[in-house]
Amino acid sequence: MSNGELSSFIGTWLPQIENEMRQVLDIGDDVVAPHYGMMRYHLGWADTHFRPENHPSGKRLRPILCLLACAEVGGDPSQALPAAAAIEILHNFSLIHDDVEDGDEMRRHRPTVWKIWGVPQAINVGDAMFALAFAAIQRLARRGVEAKTVLAALDRFTQTCIALTEGQHLDMRFEQTPVVSVDEYMRMIQGKTAALVGAAVAIGALVGGASPRQETDLLQFGQAVGLAFQIQDDILGIWGDPNVTGKSAANDILRRKKSLPLLYALNHPRIGDRMQAAFALPVDPDQLPHILTLLEEGEVRRFAEQQMINQHALALASLNAALGERATNSALRALAEGLLYRSS
Amino acid sequence: MSNGELSSFIGTWLPQIENEMRQVLDIGDDVVAPHYGMMRYHLGWADTHFRPENHPSGKRLRPILCLLACAEVGGDPSQALPAAAAIEILHNFSLIHDDVEDGDEMRRHRPTVWKIWGVPQAINVGDAMFALAFAAIQRLARRGVEAKTVLAALDRFTQTCIALTEGQHLDMRFEQTPVVSVDEYMRMIQGKTAALVGAAVAIGALVGGASPRQETDLLQFGQAVGLAFQIQDDILGIWGDPNVTGKSAANDILRRKKSLPLLYALNHPRIGDRMQAAFALPVDPDQLPHILTLLEEGEVRRFAEQQMINQHALALASLNAALGERATNSALRALAEGLLYRSS
Repeated sequence: MSNGELSSFIGTWLPQIENEMRQVLDIGDDVVAPHYGMMRYHLGWADTHFRPENHPSGKRLRPILCLLACAEVGGDPSQALPAAAAIEILHNFSLIHDDVEDGDEMRRHRPTVWKIWGVPQAINVGDAMFALAFAAIQRLARRGVEAKTVLAALDRFTQTCIALTEGQHLDMRFEQTPVVSVDEYMRMIQGKTAALVGAAVAIGALVGGASPRQETDLLQFGQAVGLAFQIQDDILGIWGDPNVTGKSAANDILRRKKSLPLLYALNHPRIGDRMQAAFALPVDPDQLPHILTLLEEGEVRRFAEQQMINQHALALASLNAALGERATNSALRALAEGLLYRSS
Repeated sequence: MSNGELSSFIGTWLPQIENEMRQVLDIGDDVVAPHYGMMRYHLGWADTHFRPENHPSGKRLRPILCLLACAEVGGDPSQALPAAAAIEILHNFSLIHDDVEDGDEMRRHRPTVWKIWGVPQAINVGDAMFALAFAAIQRLARRGVEAKTVLAALDRFTQTCIALTEGQHLDMRFEQTPVVSVDEYMRMIQGKTAALVGAAVAIGALVGGASPRQETDLLQFGQAVGLAFQIQDDILGIWGDPNVTGKSAANDILRRKKSLPLLYALNHPRIGDRMQAAFALPVDPDQLPHILTLLEEGEVRRFAEQQMINQHALALASLNAALGERATNSALRALAEGLLYRSS
């Protein structure tokens, strides 16, 4: 597939991913209708009264990566639709619980599920979407995927769920920890962000008939893309243009977010002490110029960009290993570059 | 298997169930050790400092039912151990989240996970155990169970997870609802209690090589046992002997619990109005004799016992259909009777 075909691929498959997800959620009778209504609200398909609505609900990047990987190894993307739907439902389950755990009141410009229906229902709605993600991936068998391949996909999917909870565990613990190392941070985003992107690509490839070696390389590709994406996010959180990101300048500094650049700076042999002093709770907006100067002195942005470039290089090397010459024109490559060289 | 062999069966297999569960949880490195430590605490294997402990942690009835069903259809119970472990891990995931949702501070005479480590970590620990339940059941493949059978077991398992969340949804909603019908209540306990007992039996039978017809009958058996068990619990919650149950007399009346007898009484054509008046919040302990007299006038206990007897009869008929003549001496039958004719 050439780069140019990427947008037509997305245009073709996005509605089918949505359709597959809707079929998975199309269960339950009138008695439990509000249970499924809350899920449809979270997915942008319903308003708070469970009336149909089309609210923007994310780019569905992970399921697109799943279908692309299937196609790139020579498979039929329609066979991977249940896996793509499962990945997106799982992602949304984790968002519902994250919102409860972080106390976030808004998501995608609407109140979060717990904010409207309370914490107990939100926990349970998340649990239901977790179960439905497994229901979704089991539908692979209906598309003629061999039982052994379905089990391999389920195994990867389950390991990913476990990694997600490990990442979330570390994220919450780090909030309470004064000093977090860069290595610990990388471990956390490996679980929280990279694992699911890697799984999306690896499971798509599995369904498409990838060799075990190809699957491992594509898993690596996906994880590296996920890490690079998160590091890019961290860079934009400090140096992104507020007019483009829609957030205030140096937002992550004001929120004292434990992001890669800031953890590097706090642990820095030269500027670390001064960073820690300036970073004391709460960060005074007047301190921003001073902190940004410190970051410059420590070459913090350069460090973070180098980390991103390393992950990007690892992603490309893995893609080359998996696809050989076809990697150059691969839509996976095009999509990955689009994700990384962005300004918001 | 004769009745007499039941206790030796339990003695043989309980340690192996425990061992299988421990293997499933034996993952993660030092960095995420507290994540798994909280799970081991909940399961009674560790104290709050994650030091090894052996705290009583439930009778493991569901996994025993699973292995028994496997044996009763002629299978090798060791093949069903991964399913038995999965059922028990799933049950424990649901307890962790239920405790958060209900705000319960104690379980099995110890503080609950959320009470010690906070709601966010407890939600995430529950999610991890949910994922580990799927990891557990996927281990069936390692015991030589055919891929198609593993997928059938996974399908039943996933449907059960969905039913659990539907039951929990209704349970929480009914707490906020002034009038709940007996039918609605039965629907709720079908999801919250009966589904998992049914799945334990059905999945054990599947692994043991049951025919589809046998599996359906044994599913029915398990669900009916689960319903009968819950109704028995409801009866003991009002008329149980406090010296035996360890709870105060008529505990469920004082707690205004929406149990089968009380919902029947509140909807009763003759005593309903007077029940609703006496049941007003909060229930005055002095009103207890009056309420108990009303229940007698409405023949409420008789109604509840009849419901239990009906479920019990359905259970036996299903067991007969599944096992034929062997049903009479079946350990499944013995175990079911032991569960139902109890005083605490």
